[in-house]
Amino acid sequence: MTEPSFAHLSESGQACMVDVGDKPRSVRTARAEARIAVGKPIADRLRDTGAIGKGNVVETARIAGIMAAKRTSNLIPMCHPLLLDHVAVTADWEGDVLRIESSVRCAGVTGVEMEALTAASVAALTVYDMCKSAGKGIVIESLRLLEKTGGKSGDWKAYSTESH
Amino acid sequence: MTEPSFAHLSESGQACMVDVGDKPRSVRTARAEARIAVGKPIADRLRDTGAIGKGNVVETARIAGIMAAKRTSNLIPMCHPLLLDHVAVTADWEGDVLRIESSVRCAGVTGVEMEALTAASVAALTVYDMCKSAGKGIVIESLRLLEKTGGKSGDWKAYSTESH
Amino acid sequence: MTEPSFAHLSESGQACMVDVGDKPRSVRTARAEARIAVGKPIADRLRDTGAIGKGNVVETARIAGIMAAKRTSNLIPMCHPLLLDHVAVTADWEGDVLRIESSVRCAGVTGVEMEALTAASVAALTVYDMCKSAGKGIVIESLRLLEKTGGKSGDWKAYSTESH
Amino acid sequence: MTEPSFAHLSESGQACMVDVGDKPRSVRTARAEARIAVGKPIADRLRDTGAIGKGNVVETARIAGIMAAKRTSNLIPMCHPLLLDHVAVTADWEGDVLRIESSVRCAGVTGVEMEALTAASVAALTVYDMCKSAGKGIVIESLRLLEKTGGKSGDWKAYSTESH
Amino acid sequence: MTEPSFAHLSESGQACMVDVGDKPRSVRTARAEARIAVGKPIADRLRDTGAIGKGNVVETARIAGIMAAKRTSNLIPMCHPLLLDHVAVTADWEGDVLRIESSVRCAGVTGVEMEALTAASVAALTVYDMCKSAGKGIVIESLRLLEKTGGKSGDWKAYSTESH
Amino acid sequence: MTEPSFAHLSESGQACMVDVGDKPRSVRTARAEARIAVGKPIADRLRDTGAIGKGNVVETARIAGIMAAKRTSNLIPMCHPLLLDHVAVTADWEGDVLRIESSVRCAGVTGVEMEALTAASVAALTVYDMCKSAGKGIVIESLRLLEKTGGKSGDWKAYSTESH
Repeated sequence: MTEPSFAHLSESGQACMVDVGDKPRSVRTARAEARIAVGKPIADRLRDTGAIGKGNVVETARIAGIMAAKRTSNLIPMCHPLLLDHVAVTADWEGDVLRIESSVRCAGVTGVEMEALTAASVAALTVYDMCKSAGKGIVIESLRLLEKTGGKSGDWKAYSTESH
Repeated sequence: MTEPSFAHLSESGQACMVDVGDKPRSVRTARAEARIAVGKPIADRLRDTGAIGKGNVVETARIAGIMAAKRTSNLIPMCHPLLLDHVAVTADWEGDVLRIESSVRCAGVTGVEMEALTAASVAALTVYDMCKSAGKGIVIESLRLLEKTGGKSGDWKAYSTESH
Repeated sequence: MTEPSFAHLSESGQACMVDVGDKPRSVRTARAEARIAVGKPIADRLRDTGAIGKGNVVETARIAGIMAAKRTSNLIPMCHPLLLDHVAVTADWEGDVLRIESSVRCAGVTGVEMEALTAASVAALTVYDMCKSAGKGIVIESLRLLEKTGGKSGDWKAYSTESH
Repeated sequence: MTEPSFAHLSESGQACMVDVGDKPRSVRTARAEARIAVGKPIADRLRDTGAIGKGNVVETARIAGIMAAKRTSNLIPMCHPLLLDHVAVTADWEGDVLRIESSVRCAGVTGVEMEALTAASVAALTVYDMCKSAGKGIVIESLRLLEKTGGKSGDWKAYSTESH
Repeated sequence: MTEPSFAHLSESGQACMVDVGDKPRSVRTARAEARIAVGKPIADRLRDTGAIGKGNVVETARIAGIMAAKRTSNLIPMCHPLLLDHVAVTADWEGDVLRIESSVRCAGVTGVEMEALTAASVAALTVYDMCKSAGKGIVIESLRLLEKTGGKSGDWKAYSTESH
Repeated sequence: MTEPSFAHLSESGQACMVDVGDKPRSVRTARAEARIAVGKPIADRLRDTGAIGKGNVVETARIAGIMAAKRTSNLIPMCHPLLLDHVAVTADWEGDVLRIESSVRCAGVTGVEMEALTAASVAALTVYDMCKSAGKGIVIESLRLLEKTGGKSGDWKAYSTESH
């Protein structure tokens, strides 16, 4: 196995932005997910009030995730600013786990993995915030990239993207 | 078991900020963690270059986490703005898992759980960003509150705060 | 009638922040409204889908307004930063006019009129954005302060706060 | 008349960003206005000090409006980030009404209506802020789009763009 | 001479925020200056149009400086957020050098030196931006703290605060 | 000598953004520097701990500078938003002067001089912040553009870019 390479580190080990000036512009997409174990009482309450379909905890989380995706380069130090063409955040249940999925699309010179992860992460934190008065033990039990397409490094997909 | 209550939802189910105008000012603290499964090759490389002790992946992540904590109320819709007295972010290894821990302190009228979670989350995403050229399969396998102190709801501690 | 005075202008006419260092801390509230004439077809469509009660145009607008209130001092050059205790945004219909009302509360040294107006304004702009594909002729036909309480200048109420 | 369509709402009624990835890049412009009824005493004072021509209330408002246009996508949840080519804000009097007019230009995949409206709105709020010590009854009596050009939906002009 | 101490570095040399939770709240002030050598042609032009007294280069710079002071904790990683009571930025000429002076006041637990320096710095950069089409060789030839008062470390004054 | 022209001022002297809609897209670069006279005791301490090579004062400053470059158009009122392709910040010693150098690259319609100057400025302010507990008399003794390339106005280089 070859050594892993760190594009954001200079020869001397300093953090740096990658120079993307010579990269071709192409369509990039990425999907990420956050799985929030809210516990049965909160899951029941959220489901009872229809909160997932059209309710307000999830709707607020979705909006927060979309807005956060647009600010990714302000949060993640070495991220390039990008003009996102599309951001979507959805939510569904797997038992008592609320699964947030984000997808991002852009025509640009760098990928949108960080934007998808930031959207999923802030949406999940918003769910936590909206539910924390009902239980502080909520755990975001995974936050990960599901898939990316486009760019020099090509397409990539997590081994198991829908369940694990 | 009583019904869980959602302080951020109005009677009619709309998202709203809690009115904290009558809450007393007191010292609040919170600690949160994010556990990043980077995989052995990346973990080895990060350890080899001393990157955890004083290196740049972790240092960049720590700084990003501290800066993000200060912007929590801009990211999480119903969070109150707070004047944070202290934010710290540390990192240590558990096998090939890089564990980020944040701690936040404030004298105010609302808790700092969201600030601690935001710091840990953005620090973890920064690690992902700095390492993603070496492997996209990095997973943030948990993001959770470890402990909080202060406020009307009192102190709270996760069952197992150091390992699980 | 005495000359109107402009607290934000120096003797020589330069824009400046008022020094609030000697003002006492007290509870301040403000309410503002924006009236959006959306026209009958859009009003009917919004009402049909129950969009006001729990729907997504208004819910998105409410969240945008609450978030904007927290950023008022970043938008309005001479505004002081404040720690808001509460922000609420509601919506109701008067015929085909969607009326947005914001209310803000803070214990501080300056009033929260600008925060209430900013919340109402950004909520109204968000309604416009969400509906503009259905008709660009939507007009925000008034944006104004309804009431304020607290502070040295005391309480103030618009002549007609509920209809005009 | 056909049903109005809401591009920002999904089939199931959730707020979402429009995917602009397939839209062609073209020149877009938009003009918007805000009319601020400041009342005679304030209007006289602003005019006496030449404040409109080169003065500071209006100059501060113009700058605030220009800066706000650049942040539109951070304020309006479903707005796409854009690289604005030009933003201008002007002011003139119609009796005791201060009329703010913004114009925005961009070569991009979405229109700049929201940027023009945001600029006019924040400029008007800044006038309010700078004058509110002289009278809280100032009313922004209309905030609306005057004209847009470019894009798939073509050009659009308000019925009466200069007076009403 | 004793070793200089770095309050923002931990024992192990990592960057960190100072914990100000136990510091008493007191009035803090700071003044800073930036001296911009614009060269004679630009200085003459700025003076001819009265640009310093009420003109637009300096007025824009003043406003930019005031707004930047409010964002200091977003720019400087280890700075604490503060509720500023007052920010002022003035400008005067020393020959062909435009001298920007900022002053900041706050009742809080940390000093406002960084806020004053940030205000002076961004005001000076704005002057550069407004004048750069007329000459790129403009140099900000000093940026420094002039004075601070309040806090545990007490008052401090630069040796020569008005000329050098 | 011809009159200097101010691209950001309108005929009537009002601050305005330049319309760049007709400018061709081309590669732009800029380099800027900030020279920080920290004094011998602080310089020695920073050097002893290897702080320049891999240490934390400089690393924090570098990251702050890179992040600030991305926010230039939010800080400098008349700056256009840009999609930066690359930002780098380095530091080296000249005696007891810490020299920060920034370089920025972009393919766009306006130059990146302000981005380079903002990066250098905020990096220098961060050094000040990290060291101020050890001595408030630190002076940023120059902040200037070193070089720019690209754009209609062509290439430009300061007379002496490496020492003075």
